[in-house]
Amino acid sequence: MANNTITAPKDFLAAGVRCGIKKSGNHDLGLIVCPASAKAAAVFTTNKITSAAVEVSKRHIKSATVYAVVVNSGNANACTGQLGIKNAIKMCSETAGFLVVDPHEVLVASTGIIGEQMPMKAVSAGIADAVGQLAGSAVAGMSFTKAIMTTDTKPKTACRRVEISGKRVTIAGTAKGAGMIAPNMATTLCFITTDAAITKPLLAKAIRLAIGESLNKLTVDGHQSTNDTAIILTSGLAGNPLIVKQGPAYKKFANALIDLCQDLARQMALDAEGATRMFKVVVEGAATKADAAKAARAVANYDLVKCAIHGGDPNWGRIICAVGSCGIKLNPNRLSCTIGDIAVFRNGRPVKFSPKRVSKIISRKEHTITVNLGAGKFSDFCFGCDLSKGYVTINADYHT
Amino acid sequence: MANNTITAPKDFLAAGVRCGIKKSGNHDLGLIVCPASAKAAAVFTTNKITSAAVEVSKRHIKSATVYAVVVNSGNANACTGQLGIKNAIKMCSETAGFLVVDPHEVLVASTGIIGEQMPMKAVSAGIADAVGQLAGSAVAGMSFTKAIMTTDTKPKTACRRVEISGKRVTIAGTAKGAGMIAPNMATTLCFITTDAAITKPLLAKAIRLAIGESLNKLTVDGHQSTNDTAIILTSGLAGNPLIVKQGPAYKKFANALIDLCQDLARQMALDAEGATRMFKVVVEGAATKADAAKAARAVANYDLVKCAIHGGDPNWGRIICAVGSCGIKLNPNRLSCTIGDIAVFRNGRPVKFSPKRVSKIISRKEHTITVNLGAGKFSDFCFGCDLSKGYVTINADYHT
Repeated sequence: MANNTITAPKDFLAAGVRCGIKKSGNHDLGLIVCPASAKAAAVFTTNKITSAAVEVSKRHIKSATVYAVVVNSGNANACTGQLGIKNAIKMCSETAGFLVVDPHEVLVASTGIIGEQMPMKAVSAGIADAVGQLAGSAVAGMSFTKAIMTTDTKPKTACRRVEISGKRVTIAGTAKGAGMIAPNMATTLCFITTDAAITKPLLAKAIRLAIGESLNKLTVDGHQSTNDTAIILTSGLAGNPLIVKQGPAYKKFANALIDLCQDLARQMALDAEGATRMFKVVVEGAATKADAAKAARAVANYDLVKCAIHGGDPNWGRIICAVGSCGIKLNPNRLSCTIGDIAVFRNGRPVKFSPKRVSKIISRKEHTITVNLGAGKFSDFCFGCDLSKGYVTINADYHT
Repeated sequence: MANNTITAPKDFLAAGVRCGIKKSGNHDLGLIVCPASAKAAAVFTTNKITSAAVEVSKRHIKSATVYAVVVNSGNANACTGQLGIKNAIKMCSETAGFLVVDPHEVLVASTGIIGEQMPMKAVSAGIADAVGQLAGSAVAGMSFTKAIMTTDTKPKTACRRVEISGKRVTIAGTAKGAGMIAPNMATTLCFITTDAAITKPLLAKAIRLAIGESLNKLTVDGHQSTNDTAIILTSGLAGNPLIVKQGPAYKKFANALIDLCQDLARQMALDAEGATRMFKVVVEGAATKADAAKAARAVANYDLVKCAIHGGDPNWGRIICAVGSCGIKLNPNRLSCTIGDIAVFRNGRPVKFSPKRVSKIISRKEHTITVNLGAGKFSDFCFGCDLSKGYVTINADYHT
């Protein structure tokens, strides 16, 4: 079987180990290494309170080359003051020591409980262990993915292969869910590897674009974490001529990257905390692009819509209520709503429909809600998921 | 026992009947009547999609005198087009017919499912029935309260008696909960009666102030309904000299009104859909009053905070995360948080505390979370409630 994990692109090694940060004993420390050196770009959380890992990686991403990313789950290293920063730097320098590179050439990411200091003894042992287990296999790639999971029930990976200038370019990615997820710059932790030969500025442009069209259009609970980080690394070894401008080669690369990131976003929605199904909200007829995005997000974030979808209940009134209260421009006499392919509200008036048929649509694993604001020509979308008792169970007991 | 319902102030009658709008057969139509005529003021939803009742009452509130308010639950009469407006007007004119007053002197309010036409045959019979049962008793007042309940498990009433210029002035109020509640102008349905002699402009000023300090600082689920309406009626018969300026008499009246509205807000939080407890978020040290209000609301709206409180889990990291992501100004090195009287985070660093003691505090029926942003001298607050599986159960099955 083909390797579809983050070790699929040329010259990537990975590992994931259990070092004891998580009380459950599950995988909690992962490593990605690009031995011949990679170019890297990243998108970070816009939360004003950022984790120590985010602060350190924001500095290190400026390095021309990067050799590794070290990641842990089970502890967010956020709200941990100067000691937290020291520990995040230590994670980089210890990894760098094993690889004989500069600490600035290692990125770090963390996820887990906020406000507790990292158990550095366990982390140091984990880094040593992970270095020893580095491999380019699918098993190694999957071990890394396991190591970034928190409340996820399934690992999330995606891979795309495209031909660019006659050469096969591979892009692979992995992301963690499953809560504290809302669209605002970068969401969750996401790591992407590729072998495309591309300049660092264009790599940065592509990752920002792709995250904008995927993870930033996903909301699980409207919450943005202190630790959100999406990193892309390229070994540049695919053999394609270096992509230096936004021509066809760039577009092909960027489109594959968007497609891959949307695949990950969909997996995250389907495996969101307590979620049993996902949906896409498309808003059309908006006065501005920003209005369209805001309205789509408002519907996807609306607990009452999420509950109705969980119950298979064709309660379209809540969709209209969400749109009406989110502060965007709309024409009440032109406002329309379609669930799947069935119109439920048209030009400000209810439409007779079969509740049974609509209920069947919203009970599917995936469905689309379309709202036309009748106020202009702009559109945008947002992915969302249902709200179940499972979300409450997971989040009422997460800490202890 | 003293009458503490909306019939307590001088010259108010009320009734509540079952006319068959609700499938459950519970009370669903209520009437308040002030035979000698009342001055009225109101605050309405700022949702861009408003119910027919809101549209009609917005016109009728301009009348110099009002004789009655007719209210139904079980059907919101929202998103119902021109027929909806016609039906809301009909509810006023039928009530007016029985009372031999002008239809413009009757206000109307509705709550319930969005997007279905009012069953006018049942409603007309209900109005006739209610007129026949009008009485000034506590039983009649309580029947009205029952008729505005939706998913409420308890009726919500409050009463205050104050001496103004040597005369006893009574203010009584009732409100419905329990979902689709967020602070933005008026929230939910709320009806207040009083016998204070006060001008219409000052009555309007006082109700706006009181709602701003109470119901507008309450969030159950961050959702603002299409039907939100708060109405105050005064018979003016308490015997106090007419309040014509913002002097001590006005202040005494306004303070009693604020106190009464905060009482109702607290009752709503405690009986919110699925809620088992409530909390108050106080934000201090904000750069502006608006920042303080926004941050307090962000914490109270944050599902992960609400879940943690439900689980009795001292997960203060989520409070910090909510504050950090809501877009207000803060000083990360001065940011502090106290739960009850226990500091958990001070000047950007965690504080050692007893999780057991904090867990005990947040497991109480009511507790206070205080956040200092370290960015200025402004403060504000917001009431919230926990998020339980009950909320999901209620809202996944509400429609059918």
